[in-house]
Formats: sequence, C-alpha cells, structure tokens
Amino acid sequence: MKLQGIFPPITTPFDYSGNILKAKVQHNVEKWNRTALSGYVVCGSTGESVYLTSEEKILLWELVAQYADSSKLLLAGTGVESVRETVTLTNRAAEIGYKAAMVRTPHYYKNVLNKPESQLLYFRSVADQAKIPIMIYNWPQATGVDIAPEAVAQLSEHPNIIAIKESSGNIEKVMQMIRECKPGFQVLVGSAPTIWPSFSVGAVGAVLAFANAAPYATITVWEAYRTRDFEAAADWQARIARAAQLVTTKYGIPGLKYAMDLNGYYGGPPRLPLTPICPKAQREIEQAFDGLNG
Amino acid sequence: MKLQGIFPPITTPFDYSGNILKAKVQHNVEKWNRTALSGYVVCGSTGESVYLTSEEKILLWELVAQYADSSKLLLAGTGVESVRETVTLTNRAAEIGYKAAMVRTPHYYKNVLNKPESQLLYFRSVADQAKIPIMIYNWPQATGVDIAPEAVAQLSEHPNIIAIKESSGNIEKVMQMIRECKPGFQVLVGSAPTIWPSFSVGAVGAVLAFANAAPYATITVWEAYRTRDFEAAADWQARIARAAQLVTTKYGIPGLKYAMDLNGYYGGPPRLPLTPICPKAQREIEQAFDGLNG
Amino acid sequence: MKLQGIFPPITTPFDYSGNILKAKVQHNVEKWNRTALSGYVVCGSTGESVYLTSEEKILLWELVAQYADSSKLLLAGTGVESVRETVTLTNRAAEIGYKAAMVRTPHYYKNVLNKPESQLLYFRSVADQAKIPIMIYNWPQATGVDIAPEAVAQLSEHPNIIAIKESSGNIEKVMQMIRECKPGFQVLVGSAPTIWPSFSVGAVGAVLAFANAAPYATITVWEAYRTRDFEAAADWQARIARAAQLVTTKYGIPGLKYAMDLNGYYGGPPRLPLTPICPKAQREIEQAFDGLNG
Amino acid sequence: MKLQGIFPPITTPFDYSGNILKAKVQHNVEKWNRTALSGYVVCGSTGESVYLTSEEKILLWELVAQYADSSKLLLAGTGVESVRETVTLTNRAAEIGYKAAMVRTPHYYKNVLNKPESQLLYFRSVADQAKIPIMIYNWPQATGVDIAPEAVAQLSEHPNIIAIKESSGNIEKVMQMIRECKPGFQVLVGSAPTIWPSFSVGAVGAVLAFANAAPYATITVWEAYRTRDFEAAADWQARIARAAQLVTTKYGIPGLKYAMDLNGYYGGPPRLPLTPICPKAQREIEQAFDGLNG
Repeated sequence: MKLQGIFPPITTPFDYSGNILKAKVQHNVEKWNRTALSGYVVCGSTGESVYLTSEEKILLWELVAQYADSSKLLLAGTGVESVRETVTLTNRAAEIGYKAAMVRTPHYYKNVLNKPESQLLYFRSVADQAKIPIMIYNWPQATGVDIAPEAVAQLSEHPNIIAIKESSGNIEKVMQMIRECKPGFQVLVGSAPTIWPSFSVGAVGAVLAFANAAPYATITVWEAYRTRDFEAAADWQARIARAAQLVTTKYGIPGLKYAMDLNGYYGGPPRLPLTPICPKAQREIEQAFDGLNG
Repeated sequence: MKLQGIFPPITTPFDYSGNILKAKVQHNVEKWNRTALSGYVVCGSTGESVYLTSEEKILLWELVAQYADSSKLLLAGTGVESVRETVTLTNRAAEIGYKAAMVRTPHYYKNVLNKPESQLLYFRSVADQAKIPIMIYNWPQATGVDIAPEAVAQLSEHPNIIAIKESSGNIEKVMQMIRECKPGFQVLVGSAPTIWPSFSVGAVGAVLAFANAAPYATITVWEAYRTRDFEAAADWQARIARAAQLVTTKYGIPGLKYAMDLNGYYGGPPRLPLTPICPKAQREIEQAFDGLNG
Repeated sequence: MKLQGIFPPITTPFDYSGNILKAKVQHNVEKWNRTALSGYVVCGSTGESVYLTSEEKILLWELVAQYADSSKLLLAGTGVESVRETVTLTNRAAEIGYKAAMVRTPHYYKNVLNKPESQLLYFRSVADQAKIPIMIYNWPQATGVDIAPEAVAQLSEHPNIIAIKESSGNIEKVMQMIRECKPGFQVLVGSAPTIWPSFSVGAVGAVLAFANAAPYATITVWEAYRTRDFEAAADWQARIARAAQLVTTKYGIPGLKYAMDLNGYYGGPPRLPLTPICPKAQREIEQAFDGLNG
Repeated sequence: MKLQGIFPPITTPFDYSGNILKAKVQHNVEKWNRTALSGYVVCGSTGESVYLTSEEKILLWELVAQYADSSKLLLAGTGVESVRETVTLTNRAAEIGYKAAMVRTPHYYKNVLNKPESQLLYFRSVADQAKIPIMIYNWPQATGVDIAPEAVAQLSEHPNIIAIKESSGNIEKVMQMIRECKPGFQVLVGSAPTIWPSFSVGAVGAVLAFANAAPYATITVWEAYRTRDFEAAADWQARIARAAQLVTTKYGIPGLKYAMDLNGYYGGPPRLPLTPICPKAQREIEQAFDGLNG
C-alpha cells in the first residue's frame, strides 16, 4: 500500500455544546474530495481524538467512509494507551473499510514507555492482532516519549508495520530512518514547515494538520517536488511557513479551526479545555492565510 | 471533608488475559480494611486507569464501594483529557457513593495545556459541574505538564476544589502551595520516599502507590509524625526508601504488583504494554521488602 | 573538617565599569564577621566566578582571607571545566589559606559529562591532586548536568572528598545521599527555600546565596533546628521563602545584590550580560525583605 | 565577508600530559591547506576551548595564523560568559589577523540567559566593541540555552553581526532564520548529518567537527549542492551520516580525534575529564570511516 502525498488528519466538527456535527463532516469531506489530497486520517491528534469516546470515533470513521471519494485512502487513528483497546479500535476501523491504522506511541508511564523494548512490544503486539497495516505515529512534543530510529528500523521488519508518521520535525532522524529501515517501509512526516526538505531526503508523504485549511498549498509543494521543480517547492514552502506555525505550534487546533472557517470549511469550536482563539490571534491567522486558498 | 493520612491508589487486579478479577478486588480491599488506611483512591494512575474503559472504571468503583469498610473514605480517579468526559465520570462516581474525585492535569496538547489559563479553565469547568469535591492531581513525570503553585492557589478559592495530590516530589512547591493556598485547602503528596519531610512542612496526607503493598510502614510514618515522634518518623522513612523507589520510579506498577503478591495481596500481571518484571527485579524487590509487612 | 551551619557564597563587588572594588570586599566581610555565619565560599556561582579571570579569583581569595575573622571557615570555589585548571586553582587557594575547595560538576560536553563514569573520573582526578579537601557542587539548573546519588556515594569513599553542596532542591536526592554515602560525608544544601526540611532529614549545613543579604534569618532557621525548636524553624523558613525565591530563581544575582544594598552591604551592579534589576523588581524585593535584617 | 563552504572547528593537539603540541598544529593545518576547506575556526567547542586558558587560545590563534594558507579564512572562537572577556579575546584575535569571531551564547545563569532580552544585550554589547564581525554560535545541546529565530533576526540588523552557526540540527529553525533575517545575513549550520537538506533550504556553509577528520567528503556534499547535482549530494550525505554521528553525538571529541589519527592527521588524546575512546569504539569508528579519506 502506497502512502504517498498529502493527508490531512481531519478535524472533528463540534457545535458550541461540544456535540459532533454530522452535516459538517459531510461538508468538509466533500470539499476536500475535490482536491488532490491522497486520503484522510480520521481521529488523529488534530481530530481531538483524546476528547472522543470510542463510540464517537466509530461514528466519525463511518461518516467519513460514507462521504469520502473512492479515490481517497482512508486511515484511522486508533492508538490509545493499552494494546487491547488499540486492537479493538483498529479492527473496528478495518470493518468499516479503513485501509491502515495510525497508532501513536503510548506514553503515560514514561519511565517504562521510553524504553525501546516496551515500544517494540507495544507495536508488535498491536500489529500481530491488527487486521489492517499499522503506521507508527511519533509526536514527542505531545507525548513526551520519543521512539528512536533504531527501534523504528526493527519494527520495519514486521510484515504488518508499513510506515511511520514522524512529527518531531527532526530531519536527522527522518534521514536515519530512511537509511536504516527495511526497503519499502514508508516514512511520512507531520510538520508542515519542513515538508520540502523532508521530501528532498526521501520522505514519501506527509500527514499535515495545516492541510485541513489550505490543502492546495501543501499539495503544490508535493507536486513541485515530484516534478523536480525545486525552486517552486522551496518557494511554496516559504509561503506556508508562517501560517503553518500559527495553526500548529502557536495556536494549535483552535487556530487551525479558525483558519478552516476562513477558507470555506467548517472549523468551529474545539472541545474544552481547548477554547476558540482570541481576536488578536484571529487577525494574525487572517494575515498569514491571505493568498492561501482552501 | 478531611483527607488526612494515607490513601493507596489501588491497583487493578487482572488475570493473564487482561480481564478484571472481581474476587481479587474483594480480597485486596478486605485485607486493606483491616489497616488504618484512611481510604482508597480507585482508578488512579496506579490503577492503570489509562488502560481501562469507562465501563471498567465504573465496575471498579462499584466493587470497591461494596467491599470497603464504612470507615474508609472513597475517592475516584476520574480525570481524562476532556472536561465533558471528566464531568460525566465524576458524577457517575458520585452516584456510586464516592466522596471526592481526583482529577489529573490534562496534558496531551502540551503547548496549550502548560499555560496556567488553560489549567484554570479546565479545573474550574470540571469543578463547576461536579457533584462531589475535586482534588487536583499533579504528576509531571507522567504527564509532562506541571501546574504551578500560583495556579493552585487560585484554584483553592473555588468552593468545590478542596485539595491537591502533588506527586512531583518537589518539596519547595509543596511548601509554597501550603503558604499561598486558601486556609483549609489540603495538600497531599504522592511520593513515598519524601512523606516525612512533606508532613514536617504541612502536608496533611499522602496518596501512595507503595501503600498498596506495605500499608503499615507508611501508616507508621504518619502516626509517628502525628505524635511528634520525629526520630521514629525519620527512621521509618529511611526503612521504606529503597523499596518505595523500586516499586515506583524504577519498576513501576509491574514491580508494585509483584510486591503485593509477596505481601499477601493479589498483584498479578499488568495490562500490556506493561509486563511482569524479570526474575532479577523480583530478587531486588524481595530484598527491599524484607521486614515490610503487608 | 566540619562544614556545619550557614555559609554565604559571597558576591563579588564591582563598580559600574565592572572592576572589582577591594574596599567593598572589606566592608562586606567585616560586616559578615559580626554574624554567626560559619564561613565564606569565595568565587562560587553567586560570586559570578564564570565572569572572573583566574587572576581576579586569586585576588578575591587573598582579600577575603585578609579580612575574614579567624573563626570563619574559608572555602574557595575552584571548579572549572578542565581537571588541570581546577587543580591549579585549588592548590593556589590552598596556599592562600583556604581549607576546602568547592568544585562544580563540569558540564559543557553534556553527552559525555552526564555519564557517571566521567563524573567519577573528574572528581577523583581533582581530589587526587588537590592539597585541600573537595566539596562536590551540584547545581543542575545552571549546568544542565546532574550527579546521581549513587555516584556521590562512590565519591564519598575518596579520602579527599568530604562533602557535597546539593543545590537542586530535590529532597529525595538529599535523603538518598545521606543514607548511602560513607558515614562522615557531609551533605549541605544550596536552596534557601528548603533548608528546614533539609536539616530535618540530615543535611548538616547550607551554602546560601540569600545569606549574603539576610544572614540572620538563615542562621535562625539553623539554630532553631539545632535546638529542636521545630516550630520556630518552620516559622522562619516561611518568613524567608518569598525573599529567597526573588533573589535566586526569579531575579538571580542582580536581585540579590540589590537586596544587599538594602541591608547595609555593598551589592552594586553585576557584570554584563547580567544587569541591575528594574524598579518594579526593586519594589518586590523591598517588600519581601521588609523585616529581614542584614 | 562571505562565509561559504566548509569550515572545520579545528581540534587542539595535546600530548599525553595535556600540553599543546605546536608541531602537530603545523602538521594538521598544512594538511588541511591542501583541501578546498574555506577556512578554519580556531578555539571553538571542538577545539576544547573550555579547557584552554586565554594564553593558550592566543597561542593557538598565532600558530594557525602562521601556518594557514592565505586563501583560508580565519575565524576565532572567542565567546566566554562575560561580555568584557569576550571583547578582550575577540580584539586580541583581530590583532593576530582573524577576520571574524564566533561567539557562543552565554549560558551559565540560565534563568536569566534564556531570555531574549539578555541574549540581545550580550551580543550587541560584544558586537559594539569588537573590531571584527561576529558570528553567533548556538549549540543548545551543550549550553542548555537556545536562541530563538526572532532574536537572531533582530541581531541580524546589527552592522557587526554577520552570521550564525546554528548547531541544533533543527531545520525548521534554520529555515525561519533564513526567511526572517536581514538579507545578506549568513546562516551556517553545525551538524554534519544534515548539511545537504540545510543547503537545500538556504544555508550558505557549515562549521563541522567531522571535517577535521574527513574534509573531502563534506566538501563533496557542498560542491554537489553548488553544481545542482542533488543526487550526488544526497548520496554523499548518506555516506557520511554514520561516521558523523559517531564522532559527534556518540563519542564526541575523543572519537573525532581517533578518526583524525586514522586519516593522517594528529588527533591524540583530549584533556581530562575527556578521555581517549575504548577499543570497541575504535572498531566502530574504523568501520564507519572506511572509504572516507582525510
């Protein structure tokens, strides 16, 4: 299975009481369907998956499966702390038609879970029991746990572990994984401000929160890279840099949702304790997204 | 409500398939009932709450409520990332008869949740809607988020926030909270190796994983402190130091469960990705617990 | 050699051009001579030793040796990154009459120097060649390197390593060192906000920046502890807490120097890039030191 | 002044007593003279500058100035903690003929020096008084202090601050500095495993410890990049990756010196507390440098 190109980890539309808005899921997915996005990651970090019940995750997987164009690859964010629940969710997503599962590093008991042997055990246990292939998901800025390239290389030998989404932004690590993993293992990145250099060293795709709001710009970097138009790739990379920072590290999901609202998608409010951004942040985002279409 | 003395955050008994063993809950609780423990925290970090479904948490709350001696204060670990689910769980625990809820700091979106304003919002939102009082739970070693004494002081003004369990082991922080919080706000600590100095600066109790396996030793420190027998307090503190380190920072829950098995409680296996400890670790724990009764 | 009680790591008096003011060294030392301070640490972190040339350090050692009352124990801060220069400085201090040398953990090449074997090598090499005993100095907040209790325990076996100044504020670590080091090895602490609990678990003294400006208050905590007047110890600890935070973690040396000026010592300006504090910080410090005599 | 291409921060040759070997300085410099290295950085971190006295630094600057080919640009590592001593050293290097000074971020008093305003003050104060241009040097892995792109952008406006050596390996930061700094401000990087992607996003050169031992390989990456032979750049980048990791993050200066010995340079022993590497590490380095000429 090829995981190439740009995938948004889609946001979850809520109303102001915090309930899921099914119609807005449809609206967003149908609008993204008209782009060259490669597929959708449903219930990732950007989807506020840590704020969703299992029932809500399943609902979202079903809704997106219903509205997604058949050309789009469907990935489910299924990772939770326990092996057992991660397997249950993964196989539920498989039944709904998802092609692969994105599973983040477990991290609560850090003194144990920062050890490579615990990380190997977790991912192998999940992959052994999963009915669809696994993409490892590493985002140390959120989890406080980092999986080393050496461990990823070992996991790349597992027949049911096919990819990693590396969101640390650490390009040395990306390069080392590409060098040391089994041929065919796919390294995707998760940090919009560095996709161009990441592609240039061999990353085959990206899962980008930013692509929720401005898919064309990210696809343009990808297409420029693929057609060896390196000037254009660098240029578009520079154009998205500030906007991407604002809706990820600086203002996070609330900022991203505001940018979606600007660009014709439904962003809406996040669930508490996240809150909508203030007017000053709105102005910053408006400026940064000027010229970046939805 | 007085939260004084020693509370174990009780472990969850599983069989080797990872299923909850109700009979072992009964066994453990009835054995702890015979000690001077002040009460039980059910579904805290030590209870592997991050590996439990909501249904399992409710089951455990019901079981412990059924078997606990009426003199024991019942506290429920109800904190999850979202305000809405934390409130739902807290109020379910209240219905079952729990007297207070221990709510850990939310932490996944760290760039947002490390800000005091987000922490204040979360705890105030939960406390406003909770039918029982809230004890803040701060364990930065697991969450990667730390709540500052100044924020705790502000939260201590809320009529439904009555206590904090501070597990960082940072005694300067404990002292500052005691000085700056509203009179009557109760500071408990969560680190067995430092309970004696914590009591000496004003902590009124402790929630100790270690107390699952060796309740008498921890109660002895507490009683020695209360009767101003400072030599005995220091002496018992020294006696538990190594054992406490082994079953918390060094080997974590799997080590603690082994120590429980040694001392006549049911420890059993943890859920994956945690695994039982190796024979070498078992020998270390056996040595360290020699002379420490269950 | 007994390193008991309170030692200020004395500040270095500069004029506004950054030159050392010899007369102010005399003024400060003669004023401290009239207190029950146990001695002086000259050219420690608080003395801005990282901003001093070797010649300036030697000058300061000579000046303080000249003015110090004979009852005061003289300690020299001699630690720099290399073994060879640390030994040279230590033996120069010995010639001038210093009784022991305080040597901080080397830390620039952190990937090497965070390893216990490198730390053991450094301190043993220094101690082997030093003509006076060594006090290890650990301040991870500045150095980014932390020496573990197990390494300190090994170093305590060296006949020429007699003490540690542990400035992390981590009381569990202090307790573990006291338990595991060779009997007679002396543990001092370096964090004024936690001296009372540190004494209560066995620390025999403290090296306190705060004592430059308010020696009596810190001596009072020490004397109260020694005479088992624990209420008084806790009370005075609480009285100094805020002032101590302001002149250490919050405003650092510039804040401390301002507090010295308030209390009849010469503080004066620090060397660049440190700068005098702003008026708002001055007001905070004035308030916090109200009632704390020089 | 153009700071383009590859600069080794040259190691300092010591004998086994820790004394500087002048003849080996000559040997190394004359051998490097025959390469296309752009120049030399003398007394940087790799030169063990933290283990050198001021007199030794001056000696090394003089020796290298004497032996360096006139085509090589000479840069002096002059940064120490205080503004006054950094200025003194910088202007001494200027007298000897050095064209620019590399000045690392001061870092000992981290609570102050992590603030942008302190960093701006330091570099502006140094640059105002320096007789040669300043290159900022940022290596957070050693210093524990990180200078933000926004601060670098502000410093780039200073007429006497012309470049930064960014050694964090963080490519997003490199990209942001290139976007936000004044046109003409030069961004160099300091991490051999990521030079190719760094060049691809606009870095104009690199200061590489690794280039001490294997200058040709690093120059090849640079030349391939300049001639738009991106395949060759990526290929050579991959070939040096493991060797570069070994002699920087894994074994540091002792590993690098061993690699120099392998390749016909004089590496020799480091100063204590650094020590020569063990035979096992020697074997690793021999393997990794196989095929990489001096």
